[in-house]
Amino acid sequence: MRPGLEALPGRWAGGAALALGLALLVRGWRRRRPAPRREVLFFPSPATCPAALLGEPGPAPCPCPCPCPLPHGDSPLARLLRRLLSARRSLELCLFAFSSPPLGRAVQLLHRRGVRVRLVTDSGSMGLTGSQIGRLRQAGIQVRHDQESGYMHHKFAIVDKKMLITGSLNWTTQAIQSNRENVLIVEDAEYVEPFLAEFERMWEEYNPANYTFFPNKKEQK
Amino acid sequence: MRPGLEALPGRWAGGAALALGLALLVRGWRRRRPAPRREVLFFPSPATCPAALLGEPGPAPCPCPCPCPLPHGDSPLARLLRRLLSARRSLELCLFAFSSPPLGRAVQLLHRRGVRVRLVTDSGSMGLTGSQIGRLRQAGIQVRHDQESGYMHHKFAIVDKKMLITGSLNWTTQAIQSNRENVLIVEDAEYVEPFLAEFERMWEEYNPANYTFFPNKKEQK
Repeated sequence: MRPGLEALPGRWAGGAALALGLALLVRGWRRRRPAPRREVLFFPSPATCPAALLGEPGPAPCPCPCPCPLPHGDSPLARLLRRLLSARRSLELCLFAFSSPPLGRAVQLLHRRGVRVRLVTDSGSMGLTGSQIGRLRQAGIQVRHDQESGYMHHKFAIVDKKMLITGSLNWTTQAIQSNRENVLIVEDAEYVEPFLAEFERMWEEYNPANYTFFPNKKEQK
Repeated sequence: MRPGLEALPGRWAGGAALALGLALLVRGWRRRRPAPRREVLFFPSPATCPAALLGEPGPAPCPCPCPCPLPHGDSPLARLLRRLLSARRSLELCLFAFSSPPLGRAVQLLHRRGVRVRLVTDSGSMGLTGSQIGRLRQAGIQVRHDQESGYMHHKFAIVDKKMLITGSLNWTTQAIQSNRENVLIVEDAEYVEPFLAEFERMWEEYNPANYTFFPNKKEQK
């Protein structure tokens, strides 16, 4: 046997361990990137007190925790509110119907915090009883609507241009408390980017400069 | 220098190459698993001739290609039909409203091919003008419906228990041709499995054995 040969298996093993260590390091570094959030919420949701989530005090003299009789625990509505309230920079809303008071207060809270909120809705449903659209506009939030005979039937939100919230759920109390509905929370770019592009398309198309309220009215000469 | 030491760097490199080769092999094997399909369809869809997709001949004497004046190209509706028609074993449908004739024909075609089709729908919308529900039942497809005051408002399909088709789109001609709608095609298990579980929950809950048609009617003595 040549001198030194008896040490070879150990040296091969050393090289292999080094390379495997490097491979695992690279893999570990990749894994540190957080996995995209993938979550499903099903409704109806039990009625839930949104006060704590919305930072709203209970009535004096007991401002916290809210003493209202509604359950304060986890629920699909509470989860939806939490995802929405995670917005720090931007919120795009594209909603056929929007009349849920806690969701309306959440959107106003984000607007007050400096989040850029833009809302697209359906011209036929924005004036329905209990609609939040008027309040949101009064609060200074930009709203645009369709001018088509078909419905603007989407029901989605995009948080900070990276989290899509979409499904069958209209943002109404009836839908949240009584209907069988679904909402997907999605961070995969394959979904978020096309929805963002769809929002921007509609935002431009529904620019009020393009509205024609009285198409048959003649211009004054 | 000990004899044999001059060969050590080469042997370390050999071990490293072997280990890296193994790591790449494992990675390559993982990559061969097809990536989950992630696709978004936006509506309205241009009117599209579904005859070729549905294997329907045109009227004699020119059975193929269909000579109808509708466009025959790609469209969101054609893509939706293609995904649906890829079913080989099972199709779960959970649809608030279902009146689209081409989608109805696609579901009947799958049933004839031996795919196990189950359909859950909303009791209030199943009798609307143009509903496909009666035809599907006549064809022998199992249908169950809710018995709740709220709406069964989901609009999803699950193909072969591995592909979820879900969104804002009711399966109606109005929604397909006139509304702004979205449909997600999803194969990630984090979404498919909860939707499948939701379907099975409703399928059991809406078992006709549990229907109470005349809750105030007294039993005959």
